[in-house]
Amino acid sequence: MTGLDETHDPSLVSWVESANRDDSDFPIQNLPLGVFRRAGTDEPWRGGVAIGDQILDLAAVRRLRAIRGAAAEPLRAASSASLNTFMAMGPHAWSALRRALSRALRAGAPAVTRLAEALVPQRDAEMAVPATIGDFTDFYTSIHHATAVGRLFRPDNPLLPNYKWLPIAYHGRASSVGVSGQRFPRPKGQILPPGGNTPVYGPCKRLDYELELGAFVGVGNALGSTVPMTAAEGHLFGLVLLNDWSARDIQAWEYQPLGPFLAKSFATTISPWIVSMAALAPYRVAWTRPDGDPQPLPHLDSPANRTHGAIDIALEVWIETERMRRESSGPALLSRSNFRDSYWTWAQMLAHHTSNGCNLMPGDLFGSGTQSGPKPDEGGALIELSHGGKQPVTLANGETRTFVEDGDTITFRAACTAPDRARIGFGACAGTVLPAT
Amino acid sequence: MTGLDETHDPSLVSWVESANRDDSDFPIQNLPLGVFRRAGTDEPWRGGVAIGDQILDLAAVRRLRAIRGAAAEPLRAASSASLNTFMAMGPHAWSALRRALSRALRAGAPAVTRLAEALVPQRDAEMAVPATIGDFTDFYTSIHHATAVGRLFRPDNPLLPNYKWLPIAYHGRASSVGVSGQRFPRPKGQILPPGGNTPVYGPCKRLDYELELGAFVGVGNALGSTVPMTAAEGHLFGLVLLNDWSARDIQAWEYQPLGPFLAKSFATTISPWIVSMAALAPYRVAWTRPDGDPQPLPHLDSPANRTHGAIDIALEVWIETERMRRESSGPALLSRSNFRDSYWTWAQMLAHHTSNGCNLMPGDLFGSGTQSGPKPDEGGALIELSHGGKQPVTLANGETRTFVEDGDTITFRAACTAPDRARIGFGACAGTVLPAT
Repeated sequence: MTGLDETHDPSLVSWVESANRDDSDFPIQNLPLGVFRRAGTDEPWRGGVAIGDQILDLAAVRRLRAIRGAAAEPLRAASSASLNTFMAMGPHAWSALRRALSRALRAGAPAVTRLAEALVPQRDAEMAVPATIGDFTDFYTSIHHATAVGRLFRPDNPLLPNYKWLPIAYHGRASSVGVSGQRFPRPKGQILPPGGNTPVYGPCKRLDYELELGAFVGVGNALGSTVPMTAAEGHLFGLVLLNDWSARDIQAWEYQPLGPFLAKSFATTISPWIVSMAALAPYRVAWTRPDGDPQPLPHLDSPANRTHGAIDIALEVWIETERMRRESSGPALLSRSNFRDSYWTWAQMLAHHTSNGCNLMPGDLFGSGTQSGPKPDEGGALIELSHGGKQPVTLANGETRTFVEDGDTITFRAACTAPDRARIGFGACAGTVLPAT
Repeated sequence: MTGLDETHDPSLVSWVESANRDDSDFPIQNLPLGVFRRAGTDEPWRGGVAIGDQILDLAAVRRLRAIRGAAAEPLRAASSASLNTFMAMGPHAWSALRRALSRALRAGAPAVTRLAEALVPQRDAEMAVPATIGDFTDFYTSIHHATAVGRLFRPDNPLLPNYKWLPIAYHGRASSVGVSGQRFPRPKGQILPPGGNTPVYGPCKRLDYELELGAFVGVGNALGSTVPMTAAEGHLFGLVLLNDWSARDIQAWEYQPLGPFLAKSFATTISPWIVSMAALAPYRVAWTRPDGDPQPLPHLDSPANRTHGAIDIALEVWIETERMRRESSGPALLSRSNFRDSYWTWAQMLAHHTSNGCNLMPGDLFGSGTQSGPKPDEGGALIELSHGGKQPVTLANGETRTFVEDGDTITFRAACTAPDRARIGFGACAGTVLPAT
């Protein structure tokens, strides 16, 4: 499963010079896919691969006939305006394209002169949601987040008895998933004023972000079938960053008994580049349970999941307020955490999701749930960092925040790093809150 | 808003004789749309209109050039394999096609000879889910159901404080929505055995149906915009029957704190014919609140909603067990209720759904929630009729049921009837449970 091959070799360099910088999110070992066009044009949307600060335009690569053989059909699917068809092709097709792109982008590759014509600078491009998302499912895999938020909503009973037995999830809203750069008005909704017993309809006062990873499903499964743990990884296409924007006051009033609805459905932002599971292979780590916690039931367990089901991905949240923009002081760090602290793995989420016969489709999106770490300053949402809005967070420039204010841009970043391995970055997932309309 | 026109005239008769029978669900005043092809063929799926026991093949009508003028473009959209494009065209286009079809199908219409070639018997057809469902939202609008089920899950606190203030809903699973005739294996899942504290993974033992209506969204709205009550009806395309199959034991273990997930996502069955809001216009009735209940907040209120926001639709649940099939004794009635008892209207559901800026898309599906009436025998699910599985229901042939058993076919039927009006029926919504795999 670690499945390292030539494409992971940390000594590989690209003829795209910007990909070889130590701090590049997109070295030749990454090769994430997205859908783009030149900003401000009505060019067709098409698939591309991030390499350094450039995009390799896959539609142009096709026209140049620079990739042939087993990767030709995968290239055709990956060059279209939506990656669903490519996602459905499965791991062999994904690997064939990855290998072909790795070879084509290596320093000294024969087709360099031609392929240079297929580069588009990332700063000149606009990005799209890279797949048609049939269903969006949001999990709740950080026990630290579940405990911290559970304490605010249910002080006596923060962590419910089912938490350690199954990866809790709910269905989310697919239509309002947008790509990094998303700007949306502060949501309105029904809110119960503190101490009141009659709700009012008005702008959310406790708007929050949630630091999550997203996973795109590649290969689906038929209705009535289940995907066992041993096969689950083969259904996963790749990961993005995901901001599950949350209106805490709307949520508190609406969420019983059927869960979050309008508190979440106004916007969800993802990063545009899907980092493949193959690119993440060097950063797989053991998945373990704390001493004394129950071991998973057999249908959520496998030897491979124990030895390398988790992934070491460092996550960061940044805020840029209007004042920071005005003063050009740059954004401020809000928190850091790591996905290796997740209580459940992607394979467990996928196996659980299909354990009742539910059919997954290529392009379905999973959210990991807010990734908070074990320490208080590792909260993946402001509701944790500000202790339910009671203790404002002080930013580098002296501003304070209990929740997100109008004009704030929240940006997530993530990367896998290790001394002897290539950095695998995710780029940015940024969203900006506008005043309520 | 009652908006009756020539197409509602109860004296209209069709040259399709079977449409003129008093008990036909599909008289010329109905004209519901679906997507079909001849069963057992690889013909293309296309739109059709139910008329008596026949389907008017809209692709054939186009080829025959039997409808021209303002209805030609709507006809083109409605004849395709998915109704989303037609749904997006809006009420003027929907009316234009309805009027043209009404005229073409009337006794004495000029093109009868040609159009007779465009008829396909319903018994020879197979039906498809009539639109690509982007998102499925399930509401909870029957206060009788919410109270009865709430009492089982939370004896001290059956109806939560938010219930009378907003139409509670959760996001459902779109991929597993199937059309009448759906057959699916009994779901498996994690279940906490009674009195135990360690869950087991196995077949659901408390499988239930939920009697619901579904509504297809026609015209969508942009992200960040809201649809006010006065405009909400114009976004509604039409209604179907909907069975929100539910695994009660899986639900009881998984649903806190984020709501139902695998307890519902294994299958949802809808009837194939979408009854338009126009066809239902003669059956609109006043929407009222019981004395002492709060009046809706302004964003969920409108004069038209009060005078005719509700709809008088009689609903029925039938069961056919394996023994009934073997003995050809026919199905047995389980319960009746009426959608006019819903605590919230479709307009309120739609306005609420967009009140936070959530974007609806053409083809989105709403479920009404289980429609139980005020009387104990009007429960819209077995969990109510059997008092949480404690009091088995005795069927006509002496068999008993606490929950749905393998081989059972559950069929919903619905119709609007009144002495001076044409019957508007929904056809059947049938689903069959197979043994767990």
